[in-house]
Amino acid sequence: MASHTILEIANALGGEAVGDTSLRVAGAAEPASAGADQLAIAMDSRYVDGLTAGRALAALLARGMDWQALRLKAAVVVDRPRLALSGLTAMLDAGHALPAGIHPTAIVDTTARLGKDVALGPYVVVGAGAVIGGGSRIDSHVSIAAGAEIGDNALILAGVRIGRNTRIGKHFMAHSGVVIGADGFSFVTSERSQVEAVRETMGKPEESRKDQDWLKIHSLGGVVIGDNVEIGANSSVDAGTIRPTSIGDGTKIDALVQVGHNVQVGRNCLLCAHVAVGGSARLGDNVVLGGQVGVADNITLGDGVVAGGASKILSNVPAGRAILGYPAMKMDTHIEVYKALRRLPRLFGIVENLQKSVSKTNQND
Amino acid sequence: MASHTILEIANALGGEAVGDTSLRVAGAAEPASAGADQLAIAMDSRYVDGLTAGRALAALLARGMDWQALRLKAAVVVDRPRLALSGLTAMLDAGHALPAGIHPTAIVDTTARLGKDVALGPYVVVGAGAVIGGGSRIDSHVSIAAGAEIGDNALILAGVRIGRNTRIGKHFMAHSGVVIGADGFSFVTSERSQVEAVRETMGKPEESRKDQDWLKIHSLGGVVIGDNVEIGANSSVDAGTIRPTSIGDGTKIDALVQVGHNVQVGRNCLLCAHVAVGGSARLGDNVVLGGQVGVADNITLGDGVVAGGASKILSNVPAGRAILGYPAMKMDTHIEVYKALRRLPRLFGIVENLQKSVSKTNQND
Amino acid sequence: MASHTILEIANALGGEAVGDTSLRVAGAAEPASAGADQLAIAMDSRYVDGLTAGRALAALLARGMDWQALRLKAAVVVDRPRLALSGLTAMLDAGHALPAGIHPTAIVDTTARLGKDVALGPYVVVGAGAVIGGGSRIDSHVSIAAGAEIGDNALILAGVRIGRNTRIGKHFMAHSGVVIGADGFSFVTSERSQVEAVRETMGKPEESRKDQDWLKIHSLGGVVIGDNVEIGANSSVDAGTIRPTSIGDGTKIDALVQVGHNVQVGRNCLLCAHVAVGGSARLGDNVVLGGQVGVADNITLGDGVVAGGASKILSNVPAGRAILGYPAMKMDTHIEVYKALRRLPRLFGIVENLQKSVSKTNQND
Repeated sequence: MASHTILEIANALGGEAVGDTSLRVAGAAEPASAGADQLAIAMDSRYVDGLTAGRALAALLARGMDWQALRLKAAVVVDRPRLALSGLTAMLDAGHALPAGIHPTAIVDTTARLGKDVALGPYVVVGAGAVIGGGSRIDSHVSIAAGAEIGDNALILAGVRIGRNTRIGKHFMAHSGVVIGADGFSFVTSERSQVEAVRETMGKPEESRKDQDWLKIHSLGGVVIGDNVEIGANSSVDAGTIRPTSIGDGTKIDALVQVGHNVQVGRNCLLCAHVAVGGSARLGDNVVLGGQVGVADNITLGDGVVAGGASKILSNVPAGRAILGYPAMKMDTHIEVYKALRRLPRLFGIVENLQKSVSKTNQND
Repeated sequence: MASHTILEIANALGGEAVGDTSLRVAGAAEPASAGADQLAIAMDSRYVDGLTAGRALAALLARGMDWQALRLKAAVVVDRPRLALSGLTAMLDAGHALPAGIHPTAIVDTTARLGKDVALGPYVVVGAGAVIGGGSRIDSHVSIAAGAEIGDNALILAGVRIGRNTRIGKHFMAHSGVVIGADGFSFVTSERSQVEAVRETMGKPEESRKDQDWLKIHSLGGVVIGDNVEIGANSSVDAGTIRPTSIGDGTKIDALVQVGHNVQVGRNCLLCAHVAVGGSARLGDNVVLGGQVGVADNITLGDGVVAGGASKILSNVPAGRAILGYPAMKMDTHIEVYKALRRLPRLFGIVENLQKSVSKTNQND
Repeated sequence: MASHTILEIANALGGEAVGDTSLRVAGAAEPASAGADQLAIAMDSRYVDGLTAGRALAALLARGMDWQALRLKAAVVVDRPRLALSGLTAMLDAGHALPAGIHPTAIVDTTARLGKDVALGPYVVVGAGAVIGGGSRIDSHVSIAAGAEIGDNALILAGVRIGRNTRIGKHFMAHSGVVIGADGFSFVTSERSQVEAVRETMGKPEESRKDQDWLKIHSLGGVVIGDNVEIGANSSVDAGTIRPTSIGDGTKIDALVQVGHNVQVGRNCLLCAHVAVGGSARLGDNVVLGGQVGVADNITLGDGVVAGGASKILSNVPAGRAILGYPAMKMDTHIEVYKALRRLPRLFGIVENLQKSVSKTNQND
């Protein structure tokens, strides 16, 4: 990283430079391990001990932290440290070292259309009629199926698979191992299956459990992804059956997430690691699903729903609700229920004593 | 897609053609977005509004829906719409555009044996002694380890990894990123480990928590997969230790599923996304595991077991049972328990009041 | 496999050879399917029936099992069968058939440094300045980003992705599809988001749910992995933000595991399949997480914590504790709570009857 003065950094981040604002730093580090030429990132008071023990001369501080008491020479003071961290890390990120141009081992069908300044790494394969927007950079071993379309300025890392019937917007980022457009998991038996029986009876067992083959419902609908979408390592977005599976602008998806067939994800959602969204579920805008959240098929989540980690959502959720648990319920209800649960074994004892008391009272009557 | 008449489609699907059965359609779509030349897929009454608002002249309807009241010119009427959808989507699926023949960049060991009409895409690698059955189509970047055997008519998409000691039946389909035959997760410490202590004591803490190395138990057993098996994107089936991990004929596995070492999965099972089956578990035939279901190691599930989404199965389950929850219990019991759970915080209040009443009564006596 | 005498095997495993110790075996098998030239693996009395029914002449037996009553000709008797199985399977493992040397299609940047006897398979790509230690074997289609460092004697299977800013110790083993060093899932909105509101209010809904863009916090910290670490198929270890994500010596990670940004995993931990560890969580040494366990972000787990399958850990856990459930609690508490839960619907009936009794008593008074 080129070095920057404290003043330059403060200006770039919309923060306030204090102390020796001409001091130069050439990188960022945790307070305890920062060197004298690095900016210590001290986003709240928990980092004070590290700062004091470390060698940093300058730090990124939250408003209200006293740079002089911390014996710093200079500081960048900000109101919203995580927001500043976004700007700072963007400044410091050297980026992925992907060479420009088309590597001689990249195999591009003659009917594919590449925009201006597209970079293709070694062993990339681009199928017939595929379209890749200008400025896109595709790392090694990526395959882009015949007919897939990718917008401008994509960054697609090694080993990503873009399948058939896929249309992706601008500024797409996919981490290694992402698979877009695999077939949906959709099968049917010739006659009523035991799954249908269980759904209708809520679990009452049935006599007949015939050995039936599962017939495939093919996925013709493909995938449509909006602009500014990022998808994490080894995640999978399945193709829709008749209509496309769709992901709205600005949505970010973490690693090892599964988005099922026909799912509609709104704008600016966050899906954390290991989320599984079942077939034909609909997520509104600004929905946030914590790690390992599951959404049953055909469920609808309103705008702004926030599901805590590992929530298993088995019924529709209205807009703006925070939920938690398995099955998911309102977050504050869940917290009450959970507290009650821990006291439950004791409750049995209390009720037993009450029964004895009442029985004795009644005998005494 | 070549166009078809309503009569041709009805005949192909075993349905009934009504209205102008010579009307031609050239694709399928959701009712609300179907064009005049597309067959609207209206599988139940929820699609009526879309049909009325849309431009479709013809639709696939469930028996009992009135095509004339819906102002259609023609319809294909079926008794089991999802079954018809299987046939219809198969008719309309243009398939994966994988060129025939062996791509010049495919590297095939001279001792590998390829059946008739095998297609290998760019950058495929096939190891020594591997066998690939006739009619199989292997997409780009796939690796097939030395000695692996794959039956006729496989369809293996980009970036799949078929490991050593793997034997796969006919009509295998693997989506991108599938890994077959990675080592099982099986380790042992020289002396008793804290995990063994916890298993024996059901969680009572122990004094000694020695820092011991984990020694690997190697996976010699490989994987055996039957005919007509499909495996979804980025799923993994681990090799067995001494005997093979096995997956029965007709079983379908969704994306991001983990099948552990020594596991035996029966015939015609469905394992939905993010299922994890622990080492040495045994699943009977026709078992259906919903998304994110977990099966503890060494557990046995009988034929026809259906586990609702996110069930965590910690003990054996007899044949034909429907289960739900963590830990999984009978589905109807779980639903009762769950209802009770939501009323639990109130129960504490009721019992407290009872205690006061009884205490007062007793004082009054 | 070359054949071994019973005596040789017993000596290698530190066990006792009994019977005709010069008997030769040329492999191992389950008792029921073992041939006359194979060592039957009979680790406890559950295997007795298989042994009796099978054709094995020799077996690996746990101390206390009577080889003569089992009508064997010879046996290797051991005190800790799983430990012996580790040694035995290591003896019998033919290993991965990865040819020595650099395959002509491997693309190695001229500034990369390869140790002695490194093997690179077909279509491997090694970036500028990358370092690969002596004796390492890299299977086909692997990519190693510019600047990544891998220690001696690594075994990296097909299609693994080693990202930028990655430093890995000796004896690393990665199964197919592993991704090291993808960006962390770390985003921030310009103004307070609904997630922050939910965290502060424990789920009380808020009026404002503005449609805000998620701004990326870049991952500059990379990943540091110790010696003797093994990582399973399709798992992902994300890069840290400012400091590296770190994994200690001897830790073993199963398939489809997600380790988030900034996470610190100690020495000799086991993380089973589908585990998700949230950003900035800290795991001590010898921590064991069962399959599908989730660890919320910023949580600390002490040394020797054991979490049963599917535990969802939402708060810190002290050293040495065994936990289970969602939210995770002490394992023995959870078992009590679970038993109570199943009796909960009945409890409501009992309390209702009590209410009637008490009400009647009070009216009688």
